[in-house]
Amino acid sequence: MNITVWNEHVHEREDGEAARLYPDGIHGALAAVLAEAGDVRTATLAEPEHGLSADVLARTDVLLWWGHAAHDDVADDVVGRVVERVLGGMGLVVLHSGHHSKPFKRLMGTTCDLRWRHDERETVWTVAPGHAIAAGVPETFVIPEQEMYGEFFDVPPPEELVFISSFTGGEVFRSGCCWHRGRGKVFYFRPGHETYPTYYNENVRKVIANGVHWAAPTVVGAFTRSMKGPTPPMENLGTTQLTKDPSLHGK
Amino acid sequence: MNITVWNEHVHEREDGEAARLYPDGIHGALAAVLAEAGDVRTATLAEPEHGLSADVLARTDVLLWWGHAAHDDVADDVVGRVVERVLGGMGLVVLHSGHHSKPFKRLMGTTCDLRWRHDERETVWTVAPGHAIAAGVPETFVIPEQEMYGEFFDVPPPEELVFISSFTGGEVFRSGCCWHRGRGKVFYFRPGHETYPTYYNENVRKVIANGVHWAAPTVVGAFTRSMKGPTPPMENLGTTQLTKDPSLHGK
Amino acid sequence: MNITVWNEHVHEREDGEAARLYPDGIHGALAAVLAEAGDVRTATLAEPEHGLSADVLARTDVLLWWGHAAHDDVADDVVGRVVERVLGGMGLVVLHSGHHSKPFKRLMGTTCDLRWRHDERETVWTVAPGHAIAAGVPETFVIPEQEMYGEFFDVPPPEELVFISSFTGGEVFRSGCCWHRGRGKVFYFRPGHETYPTYYNENVRKVIANGVHWAAPTVVGAFTRSMKGPTPPMENLGTTQLTKDPSLHGK
Amino acid sequence: MNITVWNEHVHEREDGEAARLYPDGIHGALAAVLAEAGDVRTATLAEPEHGLSADVLARTDVLLWWGHAAHDDVADDVVGRVVERVLGGMGLVVLHSGHHSKPFKRLMGTTCDLRWRHDERETVWTVAPGHAIAAGVPETFVIPEQEMYGEFFDVPPPEELVFISSFTGGEVFRSGCCWHRGRGKVFYFRPGHETYPTYYNENVRKVIANGVHWAAPTVVGAFTRSMKGPTPPMENLGTTQLTKDPSLHGK
Repeated sequence: MNITVWNEHVHEREDGEAARLYPDGIHGALAAVLAEAGDVRTATLAEPEHGLSADVLARTDVLLWWGHAAHDDVADDVVGRVVERVLGGMGLVVLHSGHHSKPFKRLMGTTCDLRWRHDERETVWTVAPGHAIAAGVPETFVIPEQEMYGEFFDVPPPEELVFISSFTGGEVFRSGCCWHRGRGKVFYFRPGHETYPTYYNENVRKVIANGVHWAAPTVVGAFTRSMKGPTPPMENLGTTQLTKDPSLHGK
Repeated sequence: MNITVWNEHVHEREDGEAARLYPDGIHGALAAVLAEAGDVRTATLAEPEHGLSADVLARTDVLLWWGHAAHDDVADDVVGRVVERVLGGMGLVVLHSGHHSKPFKRLMGTTCDLRWRHDERETVWTVAPGHAIAAGVPETFVIPEQEMYGEFFDVPPPEELVFISSFTGGEVFRSGCCWHRGRGKVFYFRPGHETYPTYYNENVRKVIANGVHWAAPTVVGAFTRSMKGPTPPMENLGTTQLTKDPSLHGK
Repeated sequence: MNITVWNEHVHEREDGEAARLYPDGIHGALAAVLAEAGDVRTATLAEPEHGLSADVLARTDVLLWWGHAAHDDVADDVVGRVVERVLGGMGLVVLHSGHHSKPFKRLMGTTCDLRWRHDERETVWTVAPGHAIAAGVPETFVIPEQEMYGEFFDVPPPEELVFISSFTGGEVFRSGCCWHRGRGKVFYFRPGHETYPTYYNENVRKVIANGVHWAAPTVVGAFTRSMKGPTPPMENLGTTQLTKDPSLHGK
Repeated sequence: MNITVWNEHVHEREDGEAARLYPDGIHGALAAVLAEAGDVRTATLAEPEHGLSADVLARTDVLLWWGHAAHDDVADDVVGRVVERVLGGMGLVVLHSGHHSKPFKRLMGTTCDLRWRHDERETVWTVAPGHAIAAGVPETFVIPEQEMYGEFFDVPPPEELVFISSFTGGEVFRSGCCWHRGRGKVFYFRPGHETYPTYYNENVRKVIANGVHWAAPTVVGAFTRSMKGPTPPMENLGTTQLTKDPSLHGK
């Protein structure tokens, strides 16, 4: 599996606390999480084409996205390329403040707005214990220091809802959400903020690794992406015929 | 609309606090909520056939169910009759401890287990603001005194998740859940306990009334319930033919 | 209920067959379907702002959309306005070739591609008989002359799948699909083509009328659309307190 | 992975055509499909406890179920054991006429009725090309000789709908359906009949193998199945604390 971790990489270069927590950038911390999951590369906003050339994307099975301060600086043609690749089968794992990133909003079709407040305790609950993304994750775990995200989270109803969080202030949030878009899969996971050591939490890391595995593509070029002109009659389609074995079936 | 409110009616006859809160029984309090929604009758465990004869059920559009202490005392043939009617189109609104009732468990196919603890504050959040059951309900409301119900709530993933609750202890719960079963609809709503005045809360009452409207049947005898023998070729089905008007279409 | 029927109104002015079938335009035929459902206005591409000014949209509860030949001619600011209103609560009913319209594609986040071929017989099957949109619709009905649409239909998995169609060529199509987006609802219904008298079919008309009722908004200004700045602590939220009646509850 | 293939094994012993097509029983043909997926055992109705002792089930990760003529002969205590294991995490793959089997009906909570007719051609369409169960399966494939199953299929709306079939007679069927129940997963796949060589079709075999992989459990004993008595306050829960590294975080 080829994994690309994208991070805008702004806070860790400008904010003392973020720099101390994530000396190799959030992308560096996330890459370390996924070292055993496949070949991991990183890409950041400052690189040419934000590090997401057509070639890089073509070779990416799952893309992770972390952004916060610079969503508007992501070029629209790169966003279009990412969306196109997701529709074609690439997995997309969106983390925390990436809820307002351009690719996520384009794929959701909604505002992706939510409530927020700093300095809260988060309690994460597994509500789909049989789901692949919950594998090895306890029924509940606490992250002591977090930014609160609260409902209403303006996304399409998740097709699979894996985690719900509560916060000290009484807010709740659908914090682990799955969608299918085209041939691709999208997983959003809430925890994480540049001024908290969230990405060193063992359960958070487990969920992210599980999410990458879940989002990995299962289709390799089997579908034609767009259909120009009318569809020919069935006889001309590449249908699979049952190979009748006369010795097995007398009719 | 014909509404039947079923209540086991045990606590209110045996428990001082429940009797004081619900002098006419929980069914009486719920019937008052629905007075404007249609013709409301009540039925209780102690009545013959628990007040749910085949005739009563045949004339019921939506059935509300409240039970807690006496789930096991509900006769299996009555349960089978209720389930059959839901599959045939009757709406079912299950409240609070009704999560462990026989009809609900039969229709869900799961244990319907959950966590619980007394004396908690509940905060209800609307996560589907466009849903009919959320009409007129605020983004969030607090019920100061409640029994806590916590995840994992062992039900099939709700087809439509309308409300999520949090509790002082940090627990969360999918507290407003919709499912379709056969031609019927099922709505489960969490709040309510015999020792708290939950059913006098204006938002709780609004949700229950909305839930009854949502669960009301839209199909009246259009489908044959079971199909014996093979299906005849399409020519013999009662299909609706387009009446071609030669003056409109030249082909 | 205020209903606006939007139609690009190109074929009926340029194509002899379409003009003969729909002398008042497809919007005229659809408006007739909905005469009893509420106040119906129509709007077309050629009007200023395509007939969809901010004022018209603000007063529209449900918008129907028919387009085919001129999707690209719809101005992006009008599209943005429509999408914004859907997210705010307006219902949207998209018909047939509207699957490639800009508002629908924006709300879905996918290509909305499909297979197609002319001159087919369509058989529509109800797969959610208890759904409000299936009310009064038979288990199955045939439309003798149709354009075929076939899978894979590249939309997000419908949250509620009401109808599936088959065609003479063996293709299938999820032909009645429901989604929630923001506070609004979207219903897509497949049948209909400018060279067939589809919109005179009684079952097609019934489904469209049901779809408009289902999509009607249930929320009137209850939610703040976007949240600027952090959310204050719960004490400052407009939560609804239970009015405790001391005579009812001794605690 | 430990796989158990259950087959009532009645037709292949009594019917000439079935015996010729499946000389080792349908369970034998299915076991051959799964030889590379894990350790495969088979079990049949005639064995003690139908070959599904508590011990066998405890060691089974995924159970396949084929039954048709003898659903009523399956002992209720074995059915209860199977259902309990699914709720605890075991995967269940139900094939063809297994739609009327006791475990499937118990887990669905509905009648699972459908239309049917012999001697039809089935065309299977992939409607979720990114789903793990569709991996390597073409957009469409034809099975020349099949028993037709038609809608309305009285099951809860599938959480994930992977395949839809059409038949020569114009019928459609949701032929590949996924549900979660408790900690377990259920996959229903339509094709297959004792008098047709369906289980030698390469695409059918691929789907069954994919379904087994999808249904495999991801949770190993992480959840307590039932909760007796009230839940203690959060402090006593086995929550995972973030190990704060003072050198990383100054607060």
